[in-house]
Amino acid sequence: MDRQQKFMQQALDLAEKGRGFTSPNPAVGAVIVKDNRIIGSGFHQHFGAPHAEVLAIEGAGTGTNGAAMYVNLEPCNHYGKTPPCVDKIIAAGIAKVYVGMIDPNPLVNGSGIRRLKEAGIEVNLGILEKEARQLNRGFVHQFLKQRPWITLKLALTADGFIADVSGKSQWITNTEARQYVGEQRALHDAVMVGMGTVFKDDPTLLPARRDGYIPFRVILDELLNIPPRLKLVSDEYQRRTVILTAQKDKDRKIEQLRRSGVTILPVDSDSFGWIKLSAALHSLLDFGITSIYCEGGGQLAGSLIQEKLVDELQLLIAPKILGEGIKAFGGLMKSLDEAVQLEWQEPQKLGVDILLKGVLK
Amino acid sequence: MDRQQKFMQQALDLAEKGRGFTSPNPAVGAVIVKDNRIIGSGFHQHFGAPHAEVLAIEGAGTGTNGAAMYVNLEPCNHYGKTPPCVDKIIAAGIAKVYVGMIDPNPLVNGSGIRRLKEAGIEVNLGILEKEARQLNRGFVHQFLKQRPWITLKLALTADGFIADVSGKSQWITNTEARQYVGEQRALHDAVMVGMGTVFKDDPTLLPARRDGYIPFRVILDELLNIPPRLKLVSDEYQRRTVILTAQKDKDRKIEQLRRSGVTILPVDSDSFGWIKLSAALHSLLDFGITSIYCEGGGQLAGSLIQEKLVDELQLLIAPKILGEGIKAFGGLMKSLDEAVQLEWQEPQKLGVDILLKGVLK
Repeated sequence: MDRQQKFMQQALDLAEKGRGFTSPNPAVGAVIVKDNRIIGSGFHQHFGAPHAEVLAIEGAGTGTNGAAMYVNLEPCNHYGKTPPCVDKIIAAGIAKVYVGMIDPNPLVNGSGIRRLKEAGIEVNLGILEKEARQLNRGFVHQFLKQRPWITLKLALTADGFIADVSGKSQWITNTEARQYVGEQRALHDAVMVGMGTVFKDDPTLLPARRDGYIPFRVILDELLNIPPRLKLVSDEYQRRTVILTAQKDKDRKIEQLRRSGVTILPVDSDSFGWIKLSAALHSLLDFGITSIYCEGGGQLAGSLIQEKLVDELQLLIAPKILGEGIKAFGGLMKSLDEAVQLEWQEPQKLGVDILLKGVLK
Repeated sequence: MDRQQKFMQQALDLAEKGRGFTSPNPAVGAVIVKDNRIIGSGFHQHFGAPHAEVLAIEGAGTGTNGAAMYVNLEPCNHYGKTPPCVDKIIAAGIAKVYVGMIDPNPLVNGSGIRRLKEAGIEVNLGILEKEARQLNRGFVHQFLKQRPWITLKLALTADGFIADVSGKSQWITNTEARQYVGEQRALHDAVMVGMGTVFKDDPTLLPARRDGYIPFRVILDELLNIPPRLKLVSDEYQRRTVILTAQKDKDRKIEQLRRSGVTILPVDSDSFGWIKLSAALHSLLDFGITSIYCEGGGQLAGSLIQEKLVDELQLLIAPKILGEGIKAFGGLMKSLDEAVQLEWQEPQKLGVDILLKGVLK
């Protein structure tokens, strides 16, 4: 790693601290360097808060003239909740700006860099770009596909079942796998499940650490059947619960849930009464959710795959064989010629289980 | 690795050269060291040939007095096809013998080491023992379980299917996976399949390299239905084909197959007419096969797992999702509480596929 990459890595590390709190904004960190020394730094802490560049400039005080700035995302050139960062950078006399990646937001999309160059500032684009894209993959994704990034997690036996024939699935008891899932939840704006999982497990869907960022907990509940005693709508985090429903007439239940802090998002259903998934994801994006960790069940997993809505697949494979059981992707049936294609990443052991990650092609 | 481990590793490397050719004997290599220099070496080349220790002593000539011998398996103390090695070692004036592991053969089982010690020779047991056991796992296994070691290989989709609903399974087209299977075949005394696979694929089951050792090709064919035109009974390696059948009355077909070089082993069937697997494996052990690479299909895989006859599982997992298809372990149905338990080894990528190895508990 050269010197420039090291400073950019520090900007990325700062940005990481805001991850989860900034959506629908991206996570951004910035450091200002003069004479090979960091004289100011900052990160975007939550939606509506000052931008990283502004905090870094303020922190550096009077020494910014002729200095270099490292920032993982192109500085903005438009008025949002705060004034444009490029104006501040130019006013501070910054001489060079190292940028991780272009801001894919159509409101920015290169115009920030153009503006800096026009002001005589040297701009270097693309340092640790891959890391920058990975950090803000949900943010990037929404502009590419007009829906949130979706990571689909399934816990499977070695022979591909998510539960035995009786429906029993409480078997990933090893600490490492649970810890991993808890950490993954915190890396997404929301955790999502279908009602089957809610009825069966009464989960909390909370991240491993509960003292910081709590992702939204999204439930697909077409008939708005959720019993009010279940944890997701009655625990202390109920304000982080979002229910998508096709049932628009249950005024009293909607009112009751809303009063307790739960968000109800009505969405269209198809002719069978099922929620239209792409519409649901669109409305989650409008709500500010740019990345989702989906934890099943099998029917939801099958529908997401069928409709090509999955970006990354995470399979936790237990060291068990059942022979028969509940299939991983309900309702899906492909021939080998038309099989859904993945690209495996490097596999790893997670305690006694195996983690297989695949990117959908 | 210390000096003694290095010499033992050389003995193991020599032993490896004979692997596949020595069954039902173990693979053995020996080096003789004097003044920190190898003065003689040898390995057991095939069943009936001289033992490694004898070849090493002969190679060393007159310099063996006071020398040290490194051998991966305890020297024999009984008359088999050749006279006992311990007598030769004592006569050669060897002063120290480093032994990888005790010979589990009840005819030896410590008596070789005892004899050497009684003759005043210093014996060090257990250097690279794990490697020594791994090398001869089939040989070791037969004495522990009275049946050959069984590695079960299956090629699966990400969701656990060995074929799509139409039965199509010709999908592992990536070179690395095929190469791996070809190499694994050569590490076993035999490759085994059920008739479903033979009918569907007309496979040759040959190893990656065809210029050396060709493992036996074992077919479970209860009704002796195999068409004489299929490769396994008509290609140039037909003398390496063994058919296990419960059909004892098809005299003409048996005679015809035997004339072409195929070995027919009649075994008992159960009340449904299916071959009794444990009896079949026993008769393969009697035939001299101590390790088997089983390549399915699903029914055979399910039966082997059901009867707890699998030692190692190798899953080649393709980056594909089907939703529905032919299950990996036909006829098996366990609840989660009684699921068949594995212990995963470190996973690895094999081209675009993933290799998961598990040891059955």
